[in-house]
Amino acid sequence: MSSVARYVRDQRSRYVDQLKELLAIPSVSTDPERAADVGRAAGWVRDRLKAAGCTAASIHPTKRHPIVYGEWLGAPGKPTILVYGHYDVQPVDPVALWDIPPFEPTVKDGRIYARGASDDKGQVIIHINALEAHLKTTGTAPVNVKFLIEGEEEIGSPNLDPFLIENKNKLKCDAVVVSDTAMFAKGIPSIVYGLRGLAYLQIDVTGTNRDLHSGTFGGAVVNPANALIQMIATLKDARGRIRIPGFYDDVRALTRAERKAFASLPHTDAKFKRAIGAPALFGEWGYTTLERVWARPTLDVNGMWSGFTGEGAKTVIPGQAHAKISMRLVPDQRPADIAAKAAKHLKKIAPPSVRVSVQNLHGGEAWLAPTDHPALQAAGRAVKRAFGKTPVLVREGGSIPIIASFSRILKVPSVLMGIGLHDDNLHAPNEKLDLDNFYRGNEAAAFLMEELGTAP
Amino acid sequence: MSSVARYVRDQRSRYVDQLKELLAIPSVSTDPERAADVGRAAGWVRDRLKAAGCTAASIHPTKRHPIVYGEWLGAPGKPTILVYGHYDVQPVDPVALWDIPPFEPTVKDGRIYARGASDDKGQVIIHINALEAHLKTTGTAPVNVKFLIEGEEEIGSPNLDPFLIENKNKLKCDAVVVSDTAMFAKGIPSIVYGLRGLAYLQIDVTGTNRDLHSGTFGGAVVNPANALIQMIATLKDARGRIRIPGFYDDVRALTRAERKAFASLPHTDAKFKRAIGAPALFGEWGYTTLERVWARPTLDVNGMWSGFTGEGAKTVIPGQAHAKISMRLVPDQRPADIAAKAAKHLKKIAPPSVRVSVQNLHGGEAWLAPTDHPALQAAGRAVKRAFGKTPVLVREGGSIPIIASFSRILKVPSVLMGIGLHDDNLHAPNEKLDLDNFYRGNEAAAFLMEELGTAP
Repeated sequence: MSSVARYVRDQRSRYVDQLKELLAIPSVSTDPERAADVGRAAGWVRDRLKAAGCTAASIHPTKRHPIVYGEWLGAPGKPTILVYGHYDVQPVDPVALWDIPPFEPTVKDGRIYARGASDDKGQVIIHINALEAHLKTTGTAPVNVKFLIEGEEEIGSPNLDPFLIENKNKLKCDAVVVSDTAMFAKGIPSIVYGLRGLAYLQIDVTGTNRDLHSGTFGGAVVNPANALIQMIATLKDARGRIRIPGFYDDVRALTRAERKAFASLPHTDAKFKRAIGAPALFGEWGYTTLERVWARPTLDVNGMWSGFTGEGAKTVIPGQAHAKISMRLVPDQRPADIAAKAAKHLKKIAPPSVRVSVQNLHGGEAWLAPTDHPALQAAGRAVKRAFGKTPVLVREGGSIPIIASFSRILKVPSVLMGIGLHDDNLHAPNEKLDLDNFYRGNEAAAFLMEELGTAP
Repeated sequence: MSSVARYVRDQRSRYVDQLKELLAIPSVSTDPERAADVGRAAGWVRDRLKAAGCTAASIHPTKRHPIVYGEWLGAPGKPTILVYGHYDVQPVDPVALWDIPPFEPTVKDGRIYARGASDDKGQVIIHINALEAHLKTTGTAPVNVKFLIEGEEEIGSPNLDPFLIENKNKLKCDAVVVSDTAMFAKGIPSIVYGLRGLAYLQIDVTGTNRDLHSGTFGGAVVNPANALIQMIATLKDARGRIRIPGFYDDVRALTRAERKAFASLPHTDAKFKRAIGAPALFGEWGYTTLERVWARPTLDVNGMWSGFTGEGAKTVIPGQAHAKISMRLVPDQRPADIAAKAAKHLKKIAPPSVRVSVQNLHGGEAWLAPTDHPALQAAGRAVKRAFGKTPVLVREGGSIPIIASFSRILKVPSVLMGIGLHDDNLHAPNEKLDLDNFYRGNEAAAFLMEELGTAP
């Protein structure tokens, strides 16, 4: 065992304690009341980068939440990697469904529970630990390392593209490394080569100028809740196809090779279904479950509200009704184009008896990497050394819009080496990270620096 | 002018002050946290009945909120009327849309604003004032008067039928008098001879055992919000017909005479639409607006909620989705039958990929009175004396389930003499009562006792 590998193993309990410190900071980026906590998390990350051996680490304010940048450039002539991650987290509601307070990190049964454990605090920190391990044991590192750790990933990274454009030279690198994805399954490490994009809308429907008594007025007016329901109900057909005109125009079809590779993975619908407690699965006809979640676009209601939602029976016709809907996109759909098509269609199908407004809340490009790229191959070797198995090549259904930006602005490949699991409860109560994955992840991150340092 | 009429006019400002006292008590019957306030309102009513001259007034506890009973039986040989009303009120949410605190009664522009002003505190109180006026000026009253004022009308009067059955003898009377309806319009007094019934359900849809990340799982599972939307969307067709099998089986058709009478009323859709700020009206094809709201059944979403409803964008597939829906019924539809048909249909159309439960929250029978009944005719004369105009005979779209109980259990006719207006914002923010209607209402209530005392 190399001295670096030994160091990483020796530091396990300290790594967990440090992760707990970061997880205890409620850095919910979407909540204006948490802005100070988000700032506190940024400070923690900067301090940790310095302690790990970065020669420079600084906080860059944006219009909302700051970006943390750090670097160690002591290996001239060697490649440079840019580690990207985020220190902000999703909201915690419904908080009543958590078994622990979401910001009191708790270790139980070989897992650490807290909001952000897997997405993304527990994943981004492995690369900081990896740099530290190299520097502490050998006095140097196999690659130059830059860190770009933002606080706005969960609100769509609105200020990161401008930062990339302004700091193109400072961020110059040979590859971007990101750990913000899940392994195919426990014991089956994987490298992600594709991500879906996102178009997220809010629909607001107004009927009358106030709530009405449903007895006095029921039957004479269009209830905006009923109208919203009628509109959303027509967005998908019985075969799971989305009925927004032009929606599928730019969808890149799966290759025969990809379909074959997906089919060879150890996936069963029965197990998938059981894991999430769904009575049955359903999706677009003509595609397998993995194809549906990785490589086909879809549409979901993320939230809706209208009228009386308290205890008991209130006989009201609501004045307004609201829904948040999002569409997961695949290459080569463009978020702005899809959002515009959806908004146009929604306005077209709105009954004349209500007023409809559609806001575009959030968008992100889909992404697809060539699987034969040397950086991807190096990551495969690093993961194999840490986990004892050659990782499988997979796509993921989630979105990391910034990955498309790296390719567009920095013109470098990205390597997605995630250590999460699909039952980590991202964006849901009881988020967790498997500690064995965390330990091996620290090793894999250290090995990745070695493999990229010697890659052709 | 009779001494009674003069007394009622002289007491106007005291009547308003007393109404304010009652309106200031937040007797929201649906809210368990307001139980003590509901009890406080009952005490206020009992005290007021005593002060007005009732020889007995008492509070009768029920399983939830008490019934107040009072009587003055000093006119042997004369008819006996039973005044029914309720001292409980609807919830106040959304409270942010009120211009005043809902329980700080405020007089402005000839109206009194507060939750319960029109429904029903300001209407029930006129009959107490009327008895007082007779007793104070003549030492007696033209009829015997019993009061039955409950605290559970807004939650469906669950304990009133048992009370009627147990106290049949005590409540014996020749007619029931109720003021809990609206006049056709300001300046057009009316007597209501028909009411719609109600079946109120809650639908709970469960998809998975937790909220899911919409990226990781979107496309593979049925989103319970989408499923609920699909289900509700099919409950009505494009012509406004309800598609629950058997729903129309027992609907009594409008008579030609009724359709003609409705058509002769000074109603215009343009004005109706403007009053509620609706961009357009819509309802069951083949019926006028008045026919739709008075004499045709309908279905409305009263509330719905699912997933993320906060600020910003949370990419979640909700684990559950909920809706409250209610159906307004007409004779001879039966609430339990309709609720059962709806629940059966909803379970049948639920996709296999979700679990659906349907709760029956509330129900009430529709009601229709013969328009040539002597008590109805007496009320017509009383209203004409107070308002200077013969009242029109109308139906109303709302429900007062207890009216059907009076007919079934006490076997007496009910007279519905309302002084509300259709823009009183019942069950909505900024509820109000027109003070001119309140003043004339006090007179009409006093005259009604005279007219019923001399009716054939």
